[in-house]
Amino acid sequence: MDTHITQLGQARLGIITPLMKRVAASEGVPDALLMRRIKEGTIVIPHNVHRVVKRPCAVGLGLRTKVNANIGTSTDKSETAEELRKLEAAERYGADTVMDLSIGSQIKQIRQQILSASSVPVGTVPIYEISVNAAVSHNDYLNFDIQNVLKILREQAEDGVDFFTIHAGVTRKALGILKKQKRLLGIVSRGGAILSCWMSKHKKENPFYEYFDLILDIAEEFDITLSLGDGLRPGSILDATDKPQLEELKTLGELARRARKRNVQVIIEGPGHVPLGQIKKNVLLEKRICRGAPFYVLGPLVTDVASGYDHISGAIGGALAASYGADFLCYLTPAEHLKHPSIEDVRDGVIASKIAAHAADIVKGMPAVKEWDRKMSEARRQRNWEKQIALSVDPQKAGALRNVSQPRLPDVCTMCGEYCSIKITQEAYP
Amino acid sequence: MDTHITQLGQARLGIITPLMKRVAASEGVPDALLMRRIKEGTIVIPHNVHRVVKRPCAVGLGLRTKVNANIGTSTDKSETAEELRKLEAAERYGADTVMDLSIGSQIKQIRQQILSASSVPVGTVPIYEISVNAAVSHNDYLNFDIQNVLKILREQAEDGVDFFTIHAGVTRKALGILKKQKRLLGIVSRGGAILSCWMSKHKKENPFYEYFDLILDIAEEFDITLSLGDGLRPGSILDATDKPQLEELKTLGELARRARKRNVQVIIEGPGHVPLGQIKKNVLLEKRICRGAPFYVLGPLVTDVASGYDHISGAIGGALAASYGADFLCYLTPAEHLKHPSIEDVRDGVIASKIAAHAADIVKGMPAVKEWDRKMSEARRQRNWEKQIALSVDPQKAGALRNVSQPRLPDVCTMCGEYCSIKITQEAYP
Repeated sequence: MDTHITQLGQARLGIITPLMKRVAASEGVPDALLMRRIKEGTIVIPHNVHRVVKRPCAVGLGLRTKVNANIGTSTDKSETAEELRKLEAAERYGADTVMDLSIGSQIKQIRQQILSASSVPVGTVPIYEISVNAAVSHNDYLNFDIQNVLKILREQAEDGVDFFTIHAGVTRKALGILKKQKRLLGIVSRGGAILSCWMSKHKKENPFYEYFDLILDIAEEFDITLSLGDGLRPGSILDATDKPQLEELKTLGELARRARKRNVQVIIEGPGHVPLGQIKKNVLLEKRICRGAPFYVLGPLVTDVASGYDHISGAIGGALAASYGADFLCYLTPAEHLKHPSIEDVRDGVIASKIAAHAADIVKGMPAVKEWDRKMSEARRQRNWEKQIALSVDPQKAGALRNVSQPRLPDVCTMCGEYCSIKITQEAYP
Repeated sequence: MDTHITQLGQARLGIITPLMKRVAASEGVPDALLMRRIKEGTIVIPHNVHRVVKRPCAVGLGLRTKVNANIGTSTDKSETAEELRKLEAAERYGADTVMDLSIGSQIKQIRQQILSASSVPVGTVPIYEISVNAAVSHNDYLNFDIQNVLKILREQAEDGVDFFTIHAGVTRKALGILKKQKRLLGIVSRGGAILSCWMSKHKKENPFYEYFDLILDIAEEFDITLSLGDGLRPGSILDATDKPQLEELKTLGELARRARKRNVQVIIEGPGHVPLGQIKKNVLLEKRICRGAPFYVLGPLVTDVASGYDHISGAIGGALAASYGADFLCYLTPAEHLKHPSIEDVRDGVIASKIAAHAADIVKGMPAVKEWDRKMSEARRQRNWEKQIALSVDPQKAGALRNVSQPRLPDVCTMCGEYCSIKITQEAYP
C-alpha cells in the first residue's frame, strides 16, 4: 500500500493532484491554497479511489458551503426505485453530496445502485448495515463484533463509498457523563443509539473507538473521508451544548488528530437542536477543539416545535452556523420527526438548505457568490420575468407560481399590478 | 379633545389603563413595566379608540416577537371573500396583527369587512386608497393633495384602523441622495414609490412629512399607532444599509420624537433585503437613532434569489433580526416577488415567521417561551405522537404527514422504524 495514495498524504508532500486541480477550478480558488488547506486539515475532498465522481467537491475553509441530502430506505418503507428518484431530486435541486442511510432490506444492492447513479460524493453510516445484518443473521441487531464491523467497512469501501460517518466518540466515559446528565432526550442519533445499546449489552468499549486504528487502515487504503459522527448530539434545544455533547466533541478532536497523522481526511459532525444564541459558540468550539476541521451540522434546529416545517427551522440554524464558519449543512426535510421523507420533502429540504448556504456564503467573504443576487436584482429592475424565473433557486416552482396568476400588464406581477413600484418610478424618472 | 386619551398620554401620567392591564397579563409582564415602557416609547399597543379588538397585543421591548400578515386585494385580483379567508388563515396560524394592503376596487368596503371580522389589530397604508381614489376620480393616481390625504386618514381612523404605515421619511433630501446612489433597485416600497412619483410630478415636499403635525392630530385623536414606513428600503442585498436608507432612518428617528411629544405611539419599519452580516447593524442603528422604538422588519430577506421560497429567506433574516432586538416581523410568503398570495401562501408565510419569532424569543430572555419546546421534547421522549402533533406549530400539517406514512410499530415513525433511537435506548436502559 502506497502511503502517499490519499489526497492528504499527497498534500503533505506538496503534490497538487488532478482531483485537487479540478475541485479548485470549480470552487474558483487557487490550486496551491486548496492543497495547503487539505494539508492542514481545514479542507477535505470526499472521494474513494475506487469510484469516479462526476461532480466531486471539497468541503471546508473558504469554500462554498456544501449541502448534503440524506436518502435511503427505512424498515417501514423500502423501495429502491423511490430512493433513486430522491437521489435525482437531491441532485437536481443542488445537493453537493448525498448519504445513503438505508436500514431496510437489501442494503448492499441499494447502496450499489445509488453509487452507480450518483454524480456526487456518497456517504454512508456503516453501523446501519452492520446492525441490520446482525438482526437478519442472529435475530439480534446487537449481535456483531469488530470483525463484522471491519468486514462491512471494507465491503462498503470496495463499493466506492466516499465518506463514512462513524460514531467513534460515543465512549464509555461519555456515556457515564450522559447518565449523570438530566437530559430531556438522551440519545437521538440512530448510530449513537445502536452503539450505546451494544456497549451496554456487551459491557465493552465502542468498537469504532477501541479499534480506531483498524478503521483508519481501511480509510487510508481507499482514501475515504471519515465524518466523525456526533452520537450524543442534543435532541432538544434544552439539552444543547451540555457535558455529554462536549465530552464527545473533545474525543472527536483527538480522533481527528490521529486520523490526520494517518493521512485520513476528517469532517466533524455537529448538532442538532441548538438555540440561536448558542450556535456561534458551537461552531467556534468545534473549530478550536478539532483544529479547523470542516464542520458538518445537522440543521441546527433552532426550536423543537416546528414538526412539519423543520426544513425552515434548520435553514435558520444552518444559515447562522455557516455564517460563523460551519462548512457543510445536512438538510432537514419537512418530514423530520414525523416520517420517512417523500421526493417532495427531499426537494423542500435541499432548497431550504441551499438558501441557508447561499445566505451564509454571501457574508463568508466570497464576493463572487453575490453575482447571483446581482443578476436577479437586475432582472427585477428590467422586469424581465423569464430571467427572474430562470435565476430563482427553483425555476420550476417560481415559474408555476407566476403561471397560475398572470397579470393584465405583462411587465408586472399580480401583487402590485399597475402600482408596481419599479415600473412607476421608472416612468416618473425615465 | 382630551390630551390624555392616548395610551401614551396616560402612561406619561403614570396611569395603567385597562387595556395595558389586559395586554400585560397576556404577555406575562408586570403592568407597571408595560406602562413604563409605553411611556418611554419602547412598547406600543396598536389600538384605535373606535374599535374593539378581541385579541389586542403590544409590540416592543421584552415582549414576545409579534408577526404581521399582509392581506388585501390587488388591481389584478380583487375578491373580498378571498381576502376574508386569508384573514381567517392568518389568525388561525398565529398572526398577531394583519395589514389590509388593498389596492383593488372597493377599498373602503373591504377594509370595513376586514375590520369587522378581525380579532387582531389591523393596519393599513392609507396612501394606497388616496392614490386609487385619485386614479378613479381623475384618471391620474398622483392627482391628490394634502386635503385628500387628511380626508382618507380620517375616514380610515373612523373605520377603526389600529395602525397606519405612512412613508413620511421619503423627503426631497432623501430622494436627492438616492439619485446620486447607484442602486440596483431604486424604490421597491409601493407607498414610497407612489410618494416619490407625486413629489417628482408636483415638485413638492412629501405631504406626510410637510404636514406631519396634521397627521399627528388624527393619530392622537384616535390613538392610532403610526408605523413610520421605510419607503427607501433596499430591494437587493447589494443595496443594503446605503445612504438613502440611513438618511430616511434619521428622518424617522426625528419624526418618532415629534410623535411621542404629541402622545402618539410609533413603530419604525425596516428592511427589506439585507445580507446576514448586516442585520445586527441594522437593528442596533434603528434602536439608537429611534431611541428604542419598536422595530418592524419586512423579512429581512438574506438573499435575492429565493423567489418561490422567500418565506424561508425571510424566516432566516427575521429570526436573526428578532434575536438582536427587532420586535415585529412582517411575514413574507412563497409568492413574494411573483404574485398575489393565495390562502396557502398566507399560511406558509405566517408559520415561517412564527418559527422565526419563536426561535428568537427563546434567546431574547423570556424563559417561559422554552416551555413549548420542553413539552414537545417530553412528548418525543414518551413517543406520544398525539401530543407531538398537537404541540407542533401546525398540528394539521404534522398530523397529515404522519397519517400518510403509518409505521408498523405504533410508537415510532417510518423514518427509523424499529431502530428508533429513543425507543432502543429506552429498552437498553430501562
